[in-house]
Amino acid sequence: MNKTLQELADYLGGQLTGDPFVGISGLGTLETATAGQITFLANLKYAHKVKTTGASAVILPPKTDPFGRPAIVVDNPYLAFAKLLALFTARPRVARGIMAGASVDESSVIGKEASVYPGTFIAEGVHIGDRVTLHPNVTLYEGVVLGDDVTLHAGVSVREGCRIGDRVTIHNGTVIGGDGFGYAPDGHSWCKIPQVGNVVIEDDVEIGANATVDRAALETTRIGRGTKIDNLVQVAHNCTIGEDCLIVAQTGIAGSVKLGRHVTLGGQVAIVDHAVIGDNAMISGQSGVFGSVAPGEVLSGTPAIPHQARLKSAAVFPHLPEMRKSLTRMGNRLTRIEELLEPPRIVSLVD
Amino acid sequence: MNKTLQELADYLGGQLTGDPFVGISGLGTLETATAGQITFLANLKYAHKVKTTGASAVILPPKTDPFGRPAIVVDNPYLAFAKLLALFTARPRVARGIMAGASVDESSVIGKEASVYPGTFIAEGVHIGDRVTLHPNVTLYEGVVLGDDVTLHAGVSVREGCRIGDRVTIHNGTVIGGDGFGYAPDGHSWCKIPQVGNVVIEDDVEIGANATVDRAALETTRIGRGTKIDNLVQVAHNCTIGEDCLIVAQTGIAGSVKLGRHVTLGGQVAIVDHAVIGDNAMISGQSGVFGSVAPGEVLSGTPAIPHQARLKSAAVFPHLPEMRKSLTRMGNRLTRIEELLEPPRIVSLVD
Amino acid sequence: MNKTLQELADYLGGQLTGDPFVGISGLGTLETATAGQITFLANLKYAHKVKTTGASAVILPPKTDPFGRPAIVVDNPYLAFAKLLALFTARPRVARGIMAGASVDESSVIGKEASVYPGTFIAEGVHIGDRVTLHPNVTLYEGVVLGDDVTLHAGVSVREGCRIGDRVTIHNGTVIGGDGFGYAPDGHSWCKIPQVGNVVIEDDVEIGANATVDRAALETTRIGRGTKIDNLVQVAHNCTIGEDCLIVAQTGIAGSVKLGRHVTLGGQVAIVDHAVIGDNAMISGQSGVFGSVAPGEVLSGTPAIPHQARLKSAAVFPHLPEMRKSLTRMGNRLTRIEELLEPPRIVSLVD
Repeated sequence: MNKTLQELADYLGGQLTGDPFVGISGLGTLETATAGQITFLANLKYAHKVKTTGASAVILPPKTDPFGRPAIVVDNPYLAFAKLLALFTARPRVARGIMAGASVDESSVIGKEASVYPGTFIAEGVHIGDRVTLHPNVTLYEGVVLGDDVTLHAGVSVREGCRIGDRVTIHNGTVIGGDGFGYAPDGHSWCKIPQVGNVVIEDDVEIGANATVDRAALETTRIGRGTKIDNLVQVAHNCTIGEDCLIVAQTGIAGSVKLGRHVTLGGQVAIVDHAVIGDNAMISGQSGVFGSVAPGEVLSGTPAIPHQARLKSAAVFPHLPEMRKSLTRMGNRLTRIEELLEPPRIVSLVD
Repeated sequence: MNKTLQELADYLGGQLTGDPFVGISGLGTLETATAGQITFLANLKYAHKVKTTGASAVILPPKTDPFGRPAIVVDNPYLAFAKLLALFTARPRVARGIMAGASVDESSVIGKEASVYPGTFIAEGVHIGDRVTLHPNVTLYEGVVLGDDVTLHAGVSVREGCRIGDRVTIHNGTVIGGDGFGYAPDGHSWCKIPQVGNVVIEDDVEIGANATVDRAALETTRIGRGTKIDNLVQVAHNCTIGEDCLIVAQTGIAGSVKLGRHVTLGGQVAIVDHAVIGDNAMISGQSGVFGSVAPGEVLSGTPAIPHQARLKSAAVFPHLPEMRKSLTRMGNRLTRIEELLEPPRIVSLVD
Repeated sequence: MNKTLQELADYLGGQLTGDPFVGISGLGTLETATAGQITFLANLKYAHKVKTTGASAVILPPKTDPFGRPAIVVDNPYLAFAKLLALFTARPRVARGIMAGASVDESSVIGKEASVYPGTFIAEGVHIGDRVTLHPNVTLYEGVVLGDDVTLHAGVSVREGCRIGDRVTIHNGTVIGGDGFGYAPDGHSWCKIPQVGNVVIEDDVEIGANATVDRAALETTRIGRGTKIDNLVQVAHNCTIGEDCLIVAQTGIAGSVKLGRHVTLGGQVAIVDHAVIGDNAMISGQSGVFGSVAPGEVLSGTPAIPHQARLKSAAVFPHLPEMRKSLTRMGNRLTRIEELLEPPRIVSLVD
């Protein structure tokens, strides 16, 4: 694909500076882009690299120096780059139909232009929308519902009765609707609480590889519209995850947690069961959240406290041994002074 | 299914109060149950909700107010609820036989009333008990042994020579018997220690989705009877997990650890290799256990210390910066006092 | 297999003491080995067990007492044990060919002596070397390249365009080349950054079960020669992992991290994005690394600090509450002394 810089500026709704007829055939980073490619400046720290990049054009934020290069000025260069990358790398989707080696129950309904690869199994009463791609070795249990334009990568399992919206992509090996972890103590043993709810994944969600989202005990575990979940994340039963959240790899969300909208959880975070996390809260990587979090809070550490306070305390942590010694020494100095000012009277008492 | 309250009281061995002929056709929570459903009170904090629930009957612990409602009184309402939920949601198991698209080596032995779904592979010398369900795309390597009433969900792998007892359920994508992580240093490179042991999973174990239990180097990695393991848990080679343990999601247990009976590990816990964890110990979520733990201990934090002590220290942690400043200020005050009491003689020394 | 002790000493290049004709047919640990087996002493702490072991011979480090037993003396007994274990447990590989139930696109090229099991799917344009074993339900997307002597266990996925070197083993359920987690903010929603790079895994790498290695956004995520990765590890997009690293279970490495050679990461470690970790650095289990690490550093904790310093601070942590009380008490003692020395003049000021 080859576009002029003017065509790209029009596509992005950006402002062009320099030669509008520069031909662009691909994208690269500031460091690696070559002639014929366009690059972008997202972090002003690297503004000087615009001067030396090998790219033929640059996407810039407002009020930055193009160093004489052809440029497109937009408010959010990173977003513009994402859009151009999608434009340049999109490949037309080919519908393969239901391929030999797939097993599809005759009671299931599959929409138009599907691709169902070998080794994929579709049980009774499954309903699938249009333009769905089911890569090899996917398993859809009975009663699963998939919307339009869903892509499930190889090895994904969707358990009985779970529902997935439109334009959802789930990467390899992820399990939707495994049983929640619920047992009642029965003497020294554990009696299983049947997990008879389901999972609902709303539109435009993307979930990484080898993640797990458990079915609710009685009702629904819900992943809100537009939320993005990374690899190896655990979402336990009965959770409600709001819209447009970002949940980074290896994070674990315990049972019945409610996340608001646009919450960000860094990698390896743990959220205790029944916590309520407010809109726009941010929890930094490896934090442990043992209670609810107000909207907009930025927390870190285990147990999580406000991020700035935690940075300050963490900076003191390596000084604890010297602080403890200092305390002991000061105690001794104090005792000496006190004795000087008020000599001990124990001797006189036994006089 | 429809039962009278009397029938349910008899089934649970509980004591009925109120109309024995109330008809019950399902279960719900205190908040969401409707007419015809039974609910339960497990946490006395919610006792007032018994008054307002829409349920037709309530399972109560002894000495709680039924607010005039039909009720069944039992010692453990949560357990009773679990039993009724199982009763009401049980579906008769249908044996599907070995379905087209499954691959079964002719040297393998499969018991009565099996369901073996398409895409499932059974290698040489596998022995399988009665009433086993192998969902799609399960892989059993050579010499695997499964007991009666085992359910393996889609995508489970059981590696060569591993043995699984009766009534074991393993959820999707879990791997039993992958190689342990063992290498000997060989100059700057690593020489693999062959992992030639196996895994034994005893009766009544349940394991969640995408978990991993590694085969022993020489002998056996063992999961004790009745233990329940959540999603994405790692059990390394040579571990012995006792009976009736609960291991919550994303916990990692390093090599050669021994867990006693009825140990509880919260989510994202790490246990160092060769640790011995006593019976009934409890380790709270995200803790790191770097040594052995006595029976009944309740630990938290990294490194894990007694839970109550850790809560107290964690409460002081945010005050570290002010403590450090306070130490400096006190040091200055002390110096000033000391100078006041014993003026410095340095000058006189050089006189 | 049966070998004389002399044959084994020759094989290992070790020095024999005692009867060279002792017959050895297997291996065991110091505690469990029986007649006809050889065992090894790796940790001098257990040197006394050489006296009581039931083994017929022992592999010893230099200058240890054989207690009169036949022995082979080598510099690294653990490595020698690994080599003998491989020797005694090796089974000849049988090429099964492409088995019924596998799906192989006709445009793909498969080398000599392959074993491709049922349920395995090989897409267009895949190139596979000699003596490769693809267990059941493996999925290779289009354009994947595998070297010679590669083993992919059941359920592994290798995504489009990824390349795997010679003698690589990947255990069950692991996903190579899932999309990196990259989104640009677009108002309150998230716009996906297409992930159009790939993953390259160099020779002699081994990766455990249910791990994930994400494809790069634009270029290559690389795992260096000889590196060993444990179960459930996450390697994010654009990372470069050096040669001969050890990465223990459940560790997460964020985007664009560079690991040097021979780096060791304990279990459940987190490395922040863009960090550079120097050669031979060691990070202990559950640590959080929030910046770059110099070669050879040994760090632990979150945020990670030098390991010895962290042990000392962690030992003080349980004393924080008493330290805080002590500070308050000392402040009071100081005030009292100050008042004694310089009585408050506030009253006199208002005189």
